[in-house]
Amino acid sequence: MKQIVIINGPNLNLLGKREPGVYGSDSFESYYEHLREKYGSEVALRYYQSNHEGDLVDKLHEIGFTADGIVMNAAAYTHTSVAIADAVRAISTPVVEVHISNVYARESFRHKSYLAAHTKGIITGFGMQSYELAIQSFL
Amino acid sequence: MKQIVIINGPNLNLLGKREPGVYGSDSFESYYEHLREKYGSEVALRYYQSNHEGDLVDKLHEIGFTADGIVMNAAAYTHTSVAIADAVRAISTPVVEVHISNVYARESFRHKSYLAAHTKGIITGFGMQSYELAIQSFL
Amino acid sequence: MKQIVIINGPNLNLLGKREPGVYGSDSFESYYEHLREKYGSEVALRYYQSNHEGDLVDKLHEIGFTADGIVMNAAAYTHTSVAIADAVRAISTPVVEVHISNVYARESFRHKSYLAAHTKGIITGFGMQSYELAIQSFL
Amino acid sequence: MKQIVIINGPNLNLLGKREPGVYGSDSFESYYEHLREKYGSEVALRYYQSNHEGDLVDKLHEIGFTADGIVMNAAAYTHTSVAIADAVRAISTPVVEVHISNVYARESFRHKSYLAAHTKGIITGFGMQSYELAIQSFL
Amino acid sequence: MKQIVIINGPNLNLLGKREPGVYGSDSFESYYEHLREKYGSEVALRYYQSNHEGDLVDKLHEIGFTADGIVMNAAAYTHTSVAIADAVRAISTPVVEVHISNVYARESFRHKSYLAAHTKGIITGFGMQSYELAIQSFL
Amino acid sequence: MKQIVIINGPNLNLLGKREPGVYGSDSFESYYEHLREKYGSEVALRYYQSNHEGDLVDKLHEIGFTADGIVMNAAAYTHTSVAIADAVRAISTPVVEVHISNVYARESFRHKSYLAAHTKGIITGFGMQSYELAIQSFL
Amino acid sequence: MKQIVIINGPNLNLLGKREPGVYGSDSFESYYEHLREKYGSEVALRYYQSNHEGDLVDKLHEIGFTADGIVMNAAAYTHTSVAIADAVRAISTPVVEVHISNVYARESFRHKSYLAAHTKGIITGFGMQSYELAIQSFL
Amino acid sequence: MKQIVIINGPNLNLLGKREPGVYGSDSFESYYEHLREKYGSEVALRYYQSNHEGDLVDKLHEIGFTADGIVMNAAAYTHTSVAIADAVRAISTPVVEVHISNVYARESFRHKSYLAAHTKGIITGFGMQSYELAIQSFL
Amino acid sequence: MKQIVIINGPNLNLLGKREPGVYGSDSFESYYEHLREKYGSEVALRYYQSNHEGDLVDKLHEIGFTADGIVMNAAAYTHTSVAIADAVRAISTPVVEVHISNVYARESFRHKSYLAAHTKGIITGFGMQSYELAIQSFL
Amino acid sequence: MKQIVIINGPNLNLLGKREPGVYGSDSFESYYEHLREKYGSEVALRYYQSNHEGDLVDKLHEIGFTADGIVMNAAAYTHTSVAIADAVRAISTPVVEVHISNVYARESFRHKSYLAAHTKGIITGFGMQSYELAIQSFL
Amino acid sequence: MKQIVIINGPNLNLLGKREPGVYGSDSFESYYEHLREKYGSEVALRYYQSNHEGDLVDKLHEIGFTADGIVMNAAAYTHTSVAIADAVRAISTPVVEVHISNVYARESFRHKSYLAAHTKGIITGFGMQSYELAIQSFL
Amino acid sequence: MKQIVIINGPNLNLLGKREPGVYGSDSFESYYEHLREKYGSEVALRYYQSNHEGDLVDKLHEIGFTADGIVMNAAAYTHTSVAIADAVRAISTPVVEVHISNVYARESFRHKSYLAAHTKGIITGFGMQSYELAIQSFL
Repeated sequence: MKQIVIINGPNLNLLGKREPGVYGSDSFESYYEHLREKYGSEVALRYYQSNHEGDLVDKLHEIGFTADGIVMNAAAYTHTSVAIADAVRAISTPVVEVHISNVYARESFRHKSYLAAHTKGIITGFGMQSYELAIQSFL
Repeated sequence: MKQIVIINGPNLNLLGKREPGVYGSDSFESYYEHLREKYGSEVALRYYQSNHEGDLVDKLHEIGFTADGIVMNAAAYTHTSVAIADAVRAISTPVVEVHISNVYARESFRHKSYLAAHTKGIITGFGMQSYELAIQSFL
Repeated sequence: MKQIVIINGPNLNLLGKREPGVYGSDSFESYYEHLREKYGSEVALRYYQSNHEGDLVDKLHEIGFTADGIVMNAAAYTHTSVAIADAVRAISTPVVEVHISNVYARESFRHKSYLAAHTKGIITGFGMQSYELAIQSFL
Repeated sequence: MKQIVIINGPNLNLLGKREPGVYGSDSFESYYEHLREKYGSEVALRYYQSNHEGDLVDKLHEIGFTADGIVMNAAAYTHTSVAIADAVRAISTPVVEVHISNVYARESFRHKSYLAAHTKGIITGFGMQSYELAIQSFL
Repeated sequence: MKQIVIINGPNLNLLGKREPGVYGSDSFESYYEHLREKYGSEVALRYYQSNHEGDLVDKLHEIGFTADGIVMNAAAYTHTSVAIADAVRAISTPVVEVHISNVYARESFRHKSYLAAHTKGIITGFGMQSYELAIQSFL
Repeated sequence: MKQIVIINGPNLNLLGKREPGVYGSDSFESYYEHLREKYGSEVALRYYQSNHEGDLVDKLHEIGFTADGIVMNAAAYTHTSVAIADAVRAISTPVVEVHISNVYARESFRHKSYLAAHTKGIITGFGMQSYELAIQSFL
Repeated sequence: MKQIVIINGPNLNLLGKREPGVYGSDSFESYYEHLREKYGSEVALRYYQSNHEGDLVDKLHEIGFTADGIVMNAAAYTHTSVAIADAVRAISTPVVEVHISNVYARESFRHKSYLAAHTKGIITGFGMQSYELAIQSFL
Repeated sequence: MKQIVIINGPNLNLLGKREPGVYGSDSFESYYEHLREKYGSEVALRYYQSNHEGDLVDKLHEIGFTADGIVMNAAAYTHTSVAIADAVRAISTPVVEVHISNVYARESFRHKSYLAAHTKGIITGFGMQSYELAIQSFL
Repeated sequence: MKQIVIINGPNLNLLGKREPGVYGSDSFESYYEHLREKYGSEVALRYYQSNHEGDLVDKLHEIGFTADGIVMNAAAYTHTSVAIADAVRAISTPVVEVHISNVYARESFRHKSYLAAHTKGIITGFGMQSYELAIQSFL
Repeated sequence: MKQIVIINGPNLNLLGKREPGVYGSDSFESYYEHLREKYGSEVALRYYQSNHEGDLVDKLHEIGFTADGIVMNAAAYTHTSVAIADAVRAISTPVVEVHISNVYARESFRHKSYLAAHTKGIITGFGMQSYELAIQSFL
Repeated sequence: MKQIVIINGPNLNLLGKREPGVYGSDSFESYYEHLREKYGSEVALRYYQSNHEGDLVDKLHEIGFTADGIVMNAAAYTHTSVAIADAVRAISTPVVEVHISNVYARESFRHKSYLAAHTKGIITGFGMQSYELAIQSFL
Repeated sequence: MKQIVIINGPNLNLLGKREPGVYGSDSFESYYEHLREKYGSEVALRYYQSNHEGDLVDKLHEIGFTADGIVMNAAAYTHTSVAIADAVRAISTPVVEVHISNVYARESFRHKSYLAAHTKGIITGFGMQSYELAIQSFL
């Protein structure tokens, strides 16, 4: 079975609590259960979240030479972190960048992604479904 | 069955001929046959291509109040056309923006999309698979 | 009688359907009937709409050496078309630029007009009345 | 009868004397007489001019809750005054912004208007006729 | 007793009338009565308002070598006036800059303050309470 | 009693040691003792410092739905952290942003705050007194 | 004989009529006759003009894999069309970009060419002679 | 005798008091006495100062068609006032722009002058001697 | 013996694995052994690596008042971290900034260093030798 | 016979040695022999090269009022020299600007030419043939 | 007697020949004779001109520690030469920068001076009289 | 023995005289003697200085295919000379760029180097020691 790891960046642990108008009212954990049910027979899914830029770099290093695919929502660090972008470039596992909200309909500083040029692809704005499309891109 | 229309913009009629290193060596028509086979039982697919900005606006008007979904690769017009962006905003059918290549790994003028803020979502860089993920987003 | 031609650019054929909060809920055709009734004894009015940049250039060439005045709402092309601006400069009939909405209260890319420097004058933000004021400027 | 006030900003008291190639050779006062004759039966016109930014703010406050319409040519302050723009926004009387010359055919700093986003509409480049069209927009 | 002078810039005389959603519905005068009651035993408060940039410069010169503190809300002139900034720098009385609204949540031209670099401190966004905190900073 | 938490960002643990000409020569801890003495009867004060962006995000999440107010000096992260700004926006406890030095009299990159638009208010440049004014704003 | 195609963009059908001070007073057709006479024995010349961006893309596709050389004056589309630039890049026939006027002595938006990076060479400012030099570059 | 008027802008009434390191420690009045003594036999000197932008415009209008020369130090308004620049352009008396300090060695916003393009010449950085050189330029 | 500490930032733990074309194929650890052998008799070398911005700030605080010299390759944080730059400024031990690759031959965002202005010197582009030259600068 | 002078700027003496992938592997001298043979009966050709900006200015002055045409490849100085551009403008002999490589396909600072606005025409990207086309433009 | 040296930069040897509408029709040499006659009894004048940036630097070094004053018109190098600006800063003789034309009424790249911040003063736009005023500033 | 050439650019002949606070008080010649003593047994050192951009290009051409290494301090030309940068790229001898002062702690125009991308490495801010480190990089 394919090893796929979902990595979520800062503030995504607040999903369901934070700005429900933008991000929906479900927690990521409950959505993750749904993903495991739907894809559990095809994919070995794992999930990691941190608010720390360094932790996200460490995690990419840890799994980035063995997993088959990474689905990454770097959230705020998308727009500011060269360190995570360098990690994405340095590892061999392909990374799909996802965003829940349509970042192009928000502040202009959210239009910039340091990661994007080094990813396998980018999926933006489909709400929670963005994660599901990313998983399908690896199948 | 859901009515989904794929709209391709300028130069995509040359797929398979044009810069195969960037866009692959298959024509869009052969790929389209593949899509129809795979999704034909679930979705009524149609396909339209034009090199004319105005034709793309006309087509969006024509189908944009009756189709269930539009998969649009506006190609070069993504970066320059306010007219198409206004059409996307004006119609009621949701539009998913797709790009074959990773535009963020190319010239900086390709990082800008006038359409993006008005779409249901954006899928970028998965090669021909970008279209398939877009269709799945409507299912 | 003075020959005055109204030329409308992209998406204005959707007036009444498109974003009624911004553009009002009447079609341009019904408004045009009102204009003909009001000014029909003084002015020979004609009306042309296209979503194609090239058609708008062609039309300006066709009428731009014989008509007495042109009322032009280039819509999205206002902000992106050097070709239309060059046509406005090339012809001898004076052009009045009109906008239905107050473009200065919208996205910043709508604050730029390539045409404006070559027109007889610009009327912005009065809703449908913008056209009427433009016609009066020729009387 | 509708109460309409024309407010002119800095250097417009020199009209007829200042750069006649740009602004024409008539004083505003003589043109104002023409306006009163033409519209006197429909509109109670008043006229105010000052070279002082603060005076223009004071005048907007004084009349901006009772007059029916304001025709304002803020001249140089159009491009530099947040104070006047804030006053236009703060009052309840609608303001029509006018310019005698085509500011888009002049220096680029004249393309920017702080007021425009807060006005009922903008009329630019028709010479003295700009004032007349503005008055008509209130009728 | 300490001599503290509150100086308000353009359009603040309309407080209570102007955009109550942004600035609240009380006039500054009634708030000022509250401040006098609360701080009257500790501080000799005075209050001055003008819509004229030059008046604000004159007032800073007049009191800027004798008062113990100035609480200044330069309003729109904050963003455009080098003259007031130069006056703040030229005088010896320390100036605290205050803003009622959170200027960083509004138009980007309101993020710039010419005064700020020359003040004792800046207090922004606390509504009317901004003035009170400024007075306390002098005690 | 109101629960108020002071959160200090990077390098503020060096206060008293670091650039005393800019930040003064007292440690924050000794100043904090002063604050507890002065406000201890009215407010339950707590204090947290970290040099880690992720720790600051975690702390905001931990206390941001229960405390009554947060006084935050994000120091260097003020100017670079979208993650902290998103956390400030995501929580329900109001945050007051403080700065010890007048950031507008320093390098231009210190004039930008990602947080500011999402705070209750901003207090800048009063030295250690900035914290005290922030506490008062909650009383 | 070499197959060479001259492609002219928008408003060049007005040559001789439009701004003779900039573009000269001869029509392109009469100049084209001169070219055919001079080069007819060496080169099979063809000529195409359109005001439509999409037509120019279509024409490049049609002839861009069989002709020996293309002389293209994209006029206004030089500065705004990524679609034409992508077509020039996609085809195999080499394209020489020509301009009649010295675009560097005109408005700054005319200094930018999307095409230039993908052409065999650029010839600018020699009046009608620019076309002749371009033809010679293919001999 | 030639009529020459010196016009000083905002904060120059504080000369001698304000930032002596930058502007010297003499008041302008005492320097003006020196000028009258030195040039009184050749030139009819007058002197005017105001902190009000509008007053400076009014004064330029008043004397700008009869005096033989104007020596103007617009101070802070140099960098922000289109109104004064328009007045300088509108009048017939030539204006020499002077600055006491070397504005190019100060903040970058002081490097911009709206007036400069419309003056007879500019003299910058010679301290009080700048005025004297300006007077000599008229002799 | 002099105490010198080498501090490496994010992704440098992957040296030898990551982009060998840019960074070489040796791990930093093996290179560090070489340095200890060569300089062990003169210098007490220590080495620290972290992917966490906050850890790097903590480490600078820990050693920054006692070590004799710091050789710092902040890697990606060079270009984004004001926090590390502030730490470099706050400590008393001199810091030499090093880069393995020639950052000026890479993406433009790598040309900016927040640290550089506060260091003793910068050494860029000599591969691993950059560290050795930095050590020599302290001898 | 027409007097035409070829002037080459810095580093062009290294042609054939320098970056042959960009500039070809022939020296300019051998190409110049070819030009003399081909055009010797029609044109009196001369050739001058210098790496010194001032020498190029001197040479333009020396020949710029007597020669019939100048073919100038200012190389690096194209992008940085106002002095050479001023010389081109100051002389009466027409100058044709040539570039061997397609500067628009190289670094963005090579897209700017100070000379271009003052030349008779510009020929770019045809390799050595650029010089030949320039000579033909004078015949 | 004071030793004053006039240094003229590139193309000023063409004065009288070059663009007489901008620079007048007299050569500098004849004007220089006039200066020597007028100031010969007070000042030991010398004059130097070169089109070479390096020569101007050499000359500043040669005289810049012994002459009493330098009047420098660096012409085109004003806008591009850091080397000359560094030389002006390095020497001890004060330099007055002069310009014949009003550079602020010309191209925007002429508004920038690298020298200005390091000079005693700047005199711009008085035609040849600029030199005379500069000499007077040393008396 | 290795042939290493030190090339110094403009104003470095004034070292010891010019701004000793920035550049130290020793002449380069005395420092050069020190270098020869220290490295004379290992390296054949030569030294060249010029204030002329063209001379520096000529010297790079002369030695750039035979010397083993070049240590270049292009001083002011670092920031403005594409010609020197092109020469560095054109030659085969590797160039190490050095700066005496920390250019990142000075004016922002000194942060830009045209050379840097084409050098073997860059050493900045170590005072005279920068040259020594550069020599060591070749050993």
